[in-house]
Amino acid sequence: MLAESLKKVEAYLEEQLSTGHSLISDAVMSLLRAGGKRVRPALVLASGMFGEADLSKLVPVASAIEIVHMATLIHDDIIDGADTRRGVKTVHARYGPDVAVFTGDYLFTRAFRILSEYASHEMLSSVARAVQEVCEGEIEQYESRRNVAVSFGQYLRRIRQKTAMLFALSCYAGALVAEAPRSTADALRRFGLHLGVAFQIADDILDFSQDSATTGKPAGHDIACGVYTLPVIYALESAKWSNELRNLLNGLDVNGASPGSSGCENEPCGSRNGNAAGDSARDAAWDAARERVIAIVRESGALRRASRTAERCAARAKRCLASLPDGAGKDILTDILVSAVYRSS
Amino acid sequence: MLAESLKKVEAYLEEQLSTGHSLISDAVMSLLRAGGKRVRPALVLASGMFGEADLSKLVPVASAIEIVHMATLIHDDIIDGADTRRGVKTVHARYGPDVAVFTGDYLFTRAFRILSEYASHEMLSSVARAVQEVCEGEIEQYESRRNVAVSFGQYLRRIRQKTAMLFALSCYAGALVAEAPRSTADALRRFGLHLGVAFQIADDILDFSQDSATTGKPAGHDIACGVYTLPVIYALESAKWSNELRNLLNGLDVNGASPGSSGCENEPCGSRNGNAAGDSARDAAWDAARERVIAIVRESGALRRASRTAERCAARAKRCLASLPDGAGKDILTDILVSAVYRSS
Repeated sequence: MLAESLKKVEAYLEEQLSTGHSLISDAVMSLLRAGGKRVRPALVLASGMFGEADLSKLVPVASAIEIVHMATLIHDDIIDGADTRRGVKTVHARYGPDVAVFTGDYLFTRAFRILSEYASHEMLSSVARAVQEVCEGEIEQYESRRNVAVSFGQYLRRIRQKTAMLFALSCYAGALVAEAPRSTADALRRFGLHLGVAFQIADDILDFSQDSATTGKPAGHDIACGVYTLPVIYALESAKWSNELRNLLNGLDVNGASPGSSGCENEPCGSRNGNAAGDSARDAAWDAARERVIAIVRESGALRRASRTAERCAARAKRCLASLPDGAGKDILTDILVSAVYRSS
Repeated sequence: MLAESLKKVEAYLEEQLSTGHSLISDAVMSLLRAGGKRVRPALVLASGMFGEADLSKLVPVASAIEIVHMATLIHDDIIDGADTRRGVKTVHARYGPDVAVFTGDYLFTRAFRILSEYASHEMLSSVARAVQEVCEGEIEQYESRRNVAVSFGQYLRRIRQKTAMLFALSCYAGALVAEAPRSTADALRRFGLHLGVAFQIADDILDFSQDSATTGKPAGHDIACGVYTLPVIYALESAKWSNELRNLLNGLDVNGASPGSSGCENEPCGSRNGNAAGDSARDAAWDAARERVIAIVRESGALRRASRTAERCAARAKRCLASLPDGAGKDILTDILVSAVYRSS
């Protein structure tokens, strides 16, 4: 039943995004057809099952939230200078930053246009607030780049803003559109928040445990961008590895991008190939240092510790579902939760 | 009376934009305090005078449209690589593209959040559609860069999307919020469209006729970005200058940015100072060619011809006001029209 509805979302996305300026639709369709987990639409649809699940409203709202997510991905890739996303070339890599900036903007407004038709003023305001949080989270991430003193609390706040708020909104929006009771909508919103945190921690673990064939982006991508996630934070707390890791990260920083730049915008993260000077000895040393960081994070036990943290967040999410009526909606959300934490891509 | 209301808009903008993440508000406040003509809020307020001018609604709507405009400026500057805007450093130049991308996104969503509180669903949809047009216009401009065969028709379509649609929306929104008759709102929308075209042509003329002290950006900025506006299009039609101009523009293209890049994102437009190789002889030749283009455009009579086109658009705008009742609203709109076409900054 969810699969059927998700197909409707896919068709709606195709229909909405294939119109308009040809360059924009080309750029967007390549991202759309590269697939993706469509977690946010699934959350909207499953949460809608706790009320009067009217697909004629739920499908547009689910699609609009996915479009918002796509917009943030496209803008994210400009900053990361990422070459690939979901295994295909990013809009930024294919068309340059000009097209990427305005394609992202176009998607944001497309999403708001859909929502203005199907969603209440309250929901529109909630979506806008969630996107604001995403922006603030991204800026927070930018500000804390290359900061080896970043704390668990700072990390948690950042991933809440960057990821979990939009998960929470997806659940809340699904419930509200379906006119589920307010208490149900609130419980689902809290579920989405904990799920989002667990999902992002799992994502950050995958950046160390998987290679590019699985994730569609190079391993250690975050380190290359100077973004230190939970595995690094935990590894830095390890008595055995802390000093070496700190020195390596500071070395990557010194040998990384020039001060004041993100180190990402002018070259693909995770490689130094974009280096105009072509200093291959320095590039090799940089790659070796990055590989060593990945090895230390893996050996330090930080990935297992981060997994346990993700599991604790998932357990919190599960408790939010406890008070809700059993049924297809609850089963699907539980499945999403399990696969979010124990996923391999 | 307009001045009083515009002060309320300024206070509202300050209040709305000074909250949130400190880096975002720093970035936004510097742009806000640099001033600007606030043409769009003035259009909202003046159009509102054709109905029940309720400032408690008109001020937020006028502010939201100005915030949308600010977002497009910030994103525009990323692409142009512009160093200054309204005489102050751009967000992009001060904080880098990372902050600029997400600050722009933040502003878009801030605007939609305000609108979701004060505007009807229809108006939200209209705002979203107008922003889509702006994005399409920007992409259109990107695609037609360095195209010496760009036609008047293509130019007109581009500036309608980039500028005039948001002017039209400002008038329409003001009328609708004030519950003016639908026929009045439609006439005001058409007025805004013609005004916007006239305004943009005047702006494009200023890029040739003024220097940076007046406009806050270097003369010939558009040429440096490969954007050929009406003065260039007209100069290219001049029998006397066409060949030399075409050769110069093609030369700027060849000596300009590398193929596939906008020629703007990595260095300030209008200067070659960002050139890593520091090839000063080539830089000097490039600057000389650009100066020659500006001189030709000035000498060819293209600026006078473009002014006459702007005046014809202004006359069309004025005719849209003819059927509307006399009063303060009409007087203000007429003043805005006159100063848009005959402005010097």
